[in-house]
Amino acid sequence: MRLPLCSFYSFRHFLSQSPAAATQRRGFKGIVMRLVQFRHRGDGDGIRVGVEQGEGLGVVDLKAFDPSMPSTMRELLEMGDRGLECAQRALESGQCVVKRAQIQLLSPVLAPEKVVCVGMNYRDHCLEQNAPIPKEPIIFSKFPSAITGPYDDIILPSESKEVDWEVELAFVIGRRGKHIKEEDALSYVAGFTVANDVSARDWQMKRNGKQWLLGKTFDSFCPLGPALVTTDAVTDPDNLGVRCLVNGETVQSSSTAQMIFKTPALVAWVSKFVTLTPGDVFLTGTPPGVGVFRKPPVFLKKGDVVECQIDQLGSIINKVV
Amino acid sequence: MRLPLCSFYSFRHFLSQSPAAATQRRGFKGIVMRLVQFRHRGDGDGIRVGVEQGEGLGVVDLKAFDPSMPSTMRELLEMGDRGLECAQRALESGQCVVKRAQIQLLSPVLAPEKVVCVGMNYRDHCLEQNAPIPKEPIIFSKFPSAITGPYDDIILPSESKEVDWEVELAFVIGRRGKHIKEEDALSYVAGFTVANDVSARDWQMKRNGKQWLLGKTFDSFCPLGPALVTTDAVTDPDNLGVRCLVNGETVQSSSTAQMIFKTPALVAWVSKFVTLTPGDVFLTGTPPGVGVFRKPPVFLKKGDVVECQIDQLGSIINKVV
Repeated sequence: MRLPLCSFYSFRHFLSQSPAAATQRRGFKGIVMRLVQFRHRGDGDGIRVGVEQGEGLGVVDLKAFDPSMPSTMRELLEMGDRGLECAQRALESGQCVVKRAQIQLLSPVLAPEKVVCVGMNYRDHCLEQNAPIPKEPIIFSKFPSAITGPYDDIILPSESKEVDWEVELAFVIGRRGKHIKEEDALSYVAGFTVANDVSARDWQMKRNGKQWLLGKTFDSFCPLGPALVTTDAVTDPDNLGVRCLVNGETVQSSSTAQMIFKTPALVAWVSKFVTLTPGDVFLTGTPPGVGVFRKPPVFLKKGDVVECQIDQLGSIINKVV
Repeated sequence: MRLPLCSFYSFRHFLSQSPAAATQRRGFKGIVMRLVQFRHRGDGDGIRVGVEQGEGLGVVDLKAFDPSMPSTMRELLEMGDRGLECAQRALESGQCVVKRAQIQLLSPVLAPEKVVCVGMNYRDHCLEQNAPIPKEPIIFSKFPSAITGPYDDIILPSESKEVDWEVELAFVIGRRGKHIKEEDALSYVAGFTVANDVSARDWQMKRNGKQWLLGKTFDSFCPLGPALVTTDAVTDPDNLGVRCLVNGETVQSSSTAQMIFKTPALVAWVSKFVTLTPGDVFLTGTPPGVGVFRKPPVFLKKGDVVECQIDQLGSIINKVV
């Protein structure tokens, strides 16, 4: 029997962690977990991978449970089955649990090879701006340096006067692949999380030769989290409520059912162009209610608090500074 | 005295490696070297960092010289002065030299956080297409998965019928920085190399909502190399001949003097948006002579050989398959 090296915290949530959904073996290896990255408070730069005992509950420190496990989500995903099975054993052990107050939650993925973004991917968002429904996905990107944690600040750059919110369903690639068939696509997806595709509309729409990149990729313009919820832990990713609140007021409220190109179609499409690799993050587009199409337009200002919520996944809350 | 652990090969180039240019202390720490990444033939996936004894000559295996040195260029750059000084000592030792026939040269950087590209950045290229001279740099990107070696194949994707060449001066970031002033910018640049910004014109210009990303980022669409020539080893980066040959015929021939936004301006501009980090690659735009603006247009086909040459840096030669 393997002995975990951690200190003992609690068995409190042990019995609650055998979800019925585990029998739904669809997608990424039948694994049912909420994976996170975190830092022990007062531990400088040390990134750790953890498993939540439930949304907002204690986190099992994977490396404390098994020191041979990696410190980052990308490395964990690169290990494939062995890493995820270990994470599941760690969760089931109920040991090596760290209390939330003792940790800072980070983005569930850092330093991916790609942050793939999709434009104009909600029917209701196209209607909002009188734009035709795209016949093919519109793909752009952010640099990985834009990623920030689920409760970190969004830094308002002095270069923009038109910074806007966009709640989005994000997913993370779990297996390397190219030319992936749509019917196999979900088995390449490790799980889902919540993103805010923060956008400087002036730079996106009026400058930089109308290439969207710069307006989308300022540092801190990609809050992600709170957890990577494995594919099999989500009942129906195509029917999740998606909301954005600014200072407590609901500004976006829709459902992933409005998505034009769903997760499998996006995996298949993008893998025609590039090899996908574990840790790659996809942001799948935003529903209506963004600031730029309001009359008059509304943009973020210092002190605003933006909360992005998706059913079953959780919420990320970021203050604008 | 530190004893290198490698076998002894040759002192042949020892004396020739104290270039006068070393006195020109401009840019990245006064280091004068041609840094490469390579793989020992028959050594599977093992990446090594090396220092060329001269263009096309033997390569000093840095890790053989000092086993505490990293195996990748990005890690070497992240070490800062200590890594580069060790590389210079390794070169000067004349030891741990591997013959060219024994190695496969790789791209001098792999897996950077960013591949930053600049569009419409040559005066003569703007004239070629009757386009106005941009007042600000136009920035787009490729995914790092597009990077391939200096002599590797360009894979013609079945998804495009309009694959084109673009010789470009590339540079690599050596130090982390944000809001970098133009006058300090060269000290953030580790060095220069040659790139081919291979472009699927149909996807770049007609599809994907005119966002250039997909047309630019097919796997193998960013050949790089052959060496990272440190900033101080280049006499005048703003006055280098730049040429592209397809099947031996010159199709592009210009000079970096035609660049609208030069290296320091690009570093300063992009660092207003994002934090730059060691290993980040910039492709600085292409001169006239690309296939799409020829009358009639010419595109790459299987069997073509594309050679991109830049004075003082060398050339990359990639077969289209």
